[in-house]
Amino acid sequence: MNLPAQDAADRGRLIVQGADGPGIVASVSSVLARVGANIISLDQHSTDPAGGRFFQRTMFHLDGLPGRLTELEEELDKDLSALGLSYRLVEARKPKRVAIMVSKTDHCLLDLLWRQRHGEIPMNISMVISNHPDLGDDVRGFGIPFFHVPVAKDGKAVAEQEHLKLLKGNIDLLVLARYMQIISGEFIEELDVPIINIHHSFLPAFIGAGPYQKAKDRGVKLIGATAHYVTEDLDEGPIIEQDVVRVSHVQTTAQLQRRGADVERQVLSRAVAWHCEDRVIRDGNQTVVF
Amino acid sequence: MNLPAQDAADRGRLIVQGADGPGIVASVSSVLARVGANIISLDQHSTDPAGGRFFQRTMFHLDGLPGRLTELEEELDKDLSALGLSYRLVEARKPKRVAIMVSKTDHCLLDLLWRQRHGEIPMNISMVISNHPDLGDDVRGFGIPFFHVPVAKDGKAVAEQEHLKLLKGNIDLLVLARYMQIISGEFIEELDVPIINIHHSFLPAFIGAGPYQKAKDRGVKLIGATAHYVTEDLDEGPIIEQDVVRVSHVQTTAQLQRRGADVERQVLSRAVAWHCEDRVIRDGNQTVVF
Amino acid sequence: MNLPAQDAADRGRLIVQGADGPGIVASVSSVLARVGANIISLDQHSTDPAGGRFFQRTMFHLDGLPGRLTELEEELDKDLSALGLSYRLVEARKPKRVAIMVSKTDHCLLDLLWRQRHGEIPMNISMVISNHPDLGDDVRGFGIPFFHVPVAKDGKAVAEQEHLKLLKGNIDLLVLARYMQIISGEFIEELDVPIINIHHSFLPAFIGAGPYQKAKDRGVKLIGATAHYVTEDLDEGPIIEQDVVRVSHVQTTAQLQRRGADVERQVLSRAVAWHCEDRVIRDGNQTVVF
Amino acid sequence: MNLPAQDAADRGRLIVQGADGPGIVASVSSVLARVGANIISLDQHSTDPAGGRFFQRTMFHLDGLPGRLTELEEELDKDLSALGLSYRLVEARKPKRVAIMVSKTDHCLLDLLWRQRHGEIPMNISMVISNHPDLGDDVRGFGIPFFHVPVAKDGKAVAEQEHLKLLKGNIDLLVLARYMQIISGEFIEELDVPIINIHHSFLPAFIGAGPYQKAKDRGVKLIGATAHYVTEDLDEGPIIEQDVVRVSHVQTTAQLQRRGADVERQVLSRAVAWHCEDRVIRDGNQTVVF
Repeated sequence: MNLPAQDAADRGRLIVQGADGPGIVASVSSVLARVGANIISLDQHSTDPAGGRFFQRTMFHLDGLPGRLTELEEELDKDLSALGLSYRLVEARKPKRVAIMVSKTDHCLLDLLWRQRHGEIPMNISMVISNHPDLGDDVRGFGIPFFHVPVAKDGKAVAEQEHLKLLKGNIDLLVLARYMQIISGEFIEELDVPIINIHHSFLPAFIGAGPYQKAKDRGVKLIGATAHYVTEDLDEGPIIEQDVVRVSHVQTTAQLQRRGADVERQVLSRAVAWHCEDRVIRDGNQTVVF
Repeated sequence: MNLPAQDAADRGRLIVQGADGPGIVASVSSVLARVGANIISLDQHSTDPAGGRFFQRTMFHLDGLPGRLTELEEELDKDLSALGLSYRLVEARKPKRVAIMVSKTDHCLLDLLWRQRHGEIPMNISMVISNHPDLGDDVRGFGIPFFHVPVAKDGKAVAEQEHLKLLKGNIDLLVLARYMQIISGEFIEELDVPIINIHHSFLPAFIGAGPYQKAKDRGVKLIGATAHYVTEDLDEGPIIEQDVVRVSHVQTTAQLQRRGADVERQVLSRAVAWHCEDRVIRDGNQTVVF
Repeated sequence: MNLPAQDAADRGRLIVQGADGPGIVASVSSVLARVGANIISLDQHSTDPAGGRFFQRTMFHLDGLPGRLTELEEELDKDLSALGLSYRLVEARKPKRVAIMVSKTDHCLLDLLWRQRHGEIPMNISMVISNHPDLGDDVRGFGIPFFHVPVAKDGKAVAEQEHLKLLKGNIDLLVLARYMQIISGEFIEELDVPIINIHHSFLPAFIGAGPYQKAKDRGVKLIGATAHYVTEDLDEGPIIEQDVVRVSHVQTTAQLQRRGADVERQVLSRAVAWHCEDRVIRDGNQTVVF
Repeated sequence: MNLPAQDAADRGRLIVQGADGPGIVASVSSVLARVGANIISLDQHSTDPAGGRFFQRTMFHLDGLPGRLTELEEELDKDLSALGLSYRLVEARKPKRVAIMVSKTDHCLLDLLWRQRHGEIPMNISMVISNHPDLGDDVRGFGIPFFHVPVAKDGKAVAEQEHLKLLKGNIDLLVLARYMQIISGEFIEELDVPIINIHHSFLPAFIGAGPYQKAKDRGVKLIGATAHYVTEDLDEGPIIEQDVVRVSHVQTTAQLQRRGADVERQVLSRAVAWHCEDRVIRDGNQTVVF
């Protein structure tokens, strides 16, 4: 991430997945060796060596990578399709194009904006969309466009059309950084890029609205946050990251919320960073995080 | 706990609770000062200074405490009943009499036996009861009686009668250290001492049986354990302590179980220690832990 | 903290310390009861019930507190001086006046500014002083004055005079939020308010400069941060709060630094919050944190 | 670990290390593919893709492994020696032969004995040696030989000769589970197997004796434990694992010790498990833990 520009341009990430079988690692690394690429790091996982699902993330260096992508893809197609594997080839020099949706709460949003400013996450935040105008000044202060799209009662479909006009084709990832509206299955399908949400509880505990009040009522001794991919089923998508913080009888619900905010912003920022570094692979309703 | 015997004999714990109102701390501490007791530590909590519930735990030193209990109780009755408060007066020199119920899994049991041997928890484990004979040698190796009470299919009522014969009047606390049978409301009522259970998940996530398999299926990134008082509603009693440990896609369900075991034994041992030190006060379906 | 203004105005904090002896809690709470104050919370600690040092923090409600301070002080003087105790009486409605000194790194500074904006810490940040101009825009964006006081080689004494002109009489607390200059004993003495520093390691490991490089060289598996009061001895002052985060062989020194930054800002913010709520009492080279 | 015996017999671990260069992963995986082995998991690390040190741990399945070791070694010799790499080939079915040295404290010892009984760590504890007789019954209760070798004042050299007679040739790993004697450089050299020690502090803080007292005196807010390989320099060897637990002003030194004991046993057990699974590779004074 702190590489000289020239070097970063020659770095690539190769994500391979499919049915496990003998010789996959050898095949992938042989293709890379054949074209002259050097493996920088390699992570691999199999759900079961006998008949399981196989996942591999390889980071490599190849001199002149940008001009040699087609060549590399042809080699991969040849060797990997024979093994029934699918793959994704990513240039490390290209940051993910990200949009953030948010309501009124600023802690997750500001943490992401601040990390982008520091170059901590390989992403470009190209816009922030909110159903409230409150956070416009903060966002624009970072030099990032802010769009206020109010959601009228019974007007969700209209608002989502507006969202799609702004987002469609422009982004690789949508982040819901405490966006307090449920989004429709049609929107998810139509947008067709991964969506990461932060839920303010340790899922699957306290699904749905008001988790801090529920946590207070149940008298739990730890509260948590969960970053997950969004699917049609509310709070049921594949979990990317979770963390917790200790609480006691002393804290009021408002204080739980405050402590929780610190965990939420960290969990979301970690999940977004890992996604943008292509470390997260979906496996049904679970994730492999390398 | 590591006090010279003489000193420990003069230590008491006073637990006060009731409706909050002005002057409670002053009243309690004045009674203690009046009889010549010195406050060693004092913890106090109010759910709401205006109309909430009040809780106080005071540890004190009073020369010749064992012979002056009646005198102290008379003073407390006078002052505290006027304020509508209830109290509990405990001699620190008297360890809690504890029984443990267990099935086949030994990690929670052994941790408690080991801590008792080291004097880490102010308790006397007077017996261990199991529905399986497997752990008998381990228990007796610690010099503690072990009773094997099998539970036949449809024979729970009979077994519980047997349990009550062993336990009734003999213990101050029952600990379910991975006892894999549901106990009846009648048993809880009839036994009439607090019962602490360890549940092998971070409640309220994964209530009921097979929590590690459920955690694996849901793809969580942390697994946990919960120690709680037992009520008629399975896994719904007041939580005393919880903790978690990080896991990833790498672990199998069996490995989650092993990691979980380390958390379970710690969480249960902490909960039992705090209970035996009179640090835990029930407040409806929640606990105050001082 | 989220109280109606009227209510907050009637809240006070009473910090009592001195040699332990019988009846202190009773005396303090009796004084409060006598004037009609209601105890909201009380924390108490004795280093040793026989001849140790005693510490107590009491939060109370007294109708019309601002107009009754003198009366309360007279009562406290009478009863507490007889016991050889010193005390501090604080109105909760008065936030601490805070200045922040910083160099070029912004994470600790921004976290404090953001928490002040959200009302999370009872403080007013009245100015930020830096030996570099870089963070001026950020600070002024929060509506807070920023003073750039360069420190020339051999010019520390001059700069410190400038600092004292700005600070003396204007603040209750100075926070060094990654201020990369050693401050002199004369400055500390002359300023005469508490100073909190964040050190970017788990003290006493890696005292002095370059702790992340030292941590990398030693191959530690956790890195940490420490917030402490500043004394003349570099990194040797009383510790208020510490925390750690897990690392491995994978991280470079630069990545340790980034992970560490997240811990630093949390540890410093917690320490400042606790100080501003009068929860931290110095006890020689240690702290009692209620 | 819970494999059917047949399957486990066919599993191997291959540890490769040396100067980094292009094509190492491809070479290793090609050798394995050539002989028909299937890679189960692969971890790889380079300290620097340009001119750094390279480490790889590969777990694989090869039908009939025990009878094909020579064949596999010949292939590895051919391909890897050309690349200037050294390697270690281990059969997973062979548990490490382990001896434990201990003084009077039992918590680390019992945790290891218990985990061996449960098959949690692929090791056989073949003996326990102590300079005190106290723990003999406990050890023999697990069916493991216990040797009492007293260390007279100025008698260390004699005792170490006795130790070497017992250990030399019989073990693959020596674990110091709170053995309170300094061992000599001659002993380390002569024994010539890895030695793991548990130090009861978060190194490099509180090197040497009495770390809990030092931690209390310094007023730290976390205490820790460190498992490391033993070198001639006391407490300076490569760190394998560390962890911490939160403490406060409330705990006495004795209570720090008790809390610390829980961390010690966990940290040591993890380090021993990882070592026995060949996950830990020494890299100068650091470790790579896969």
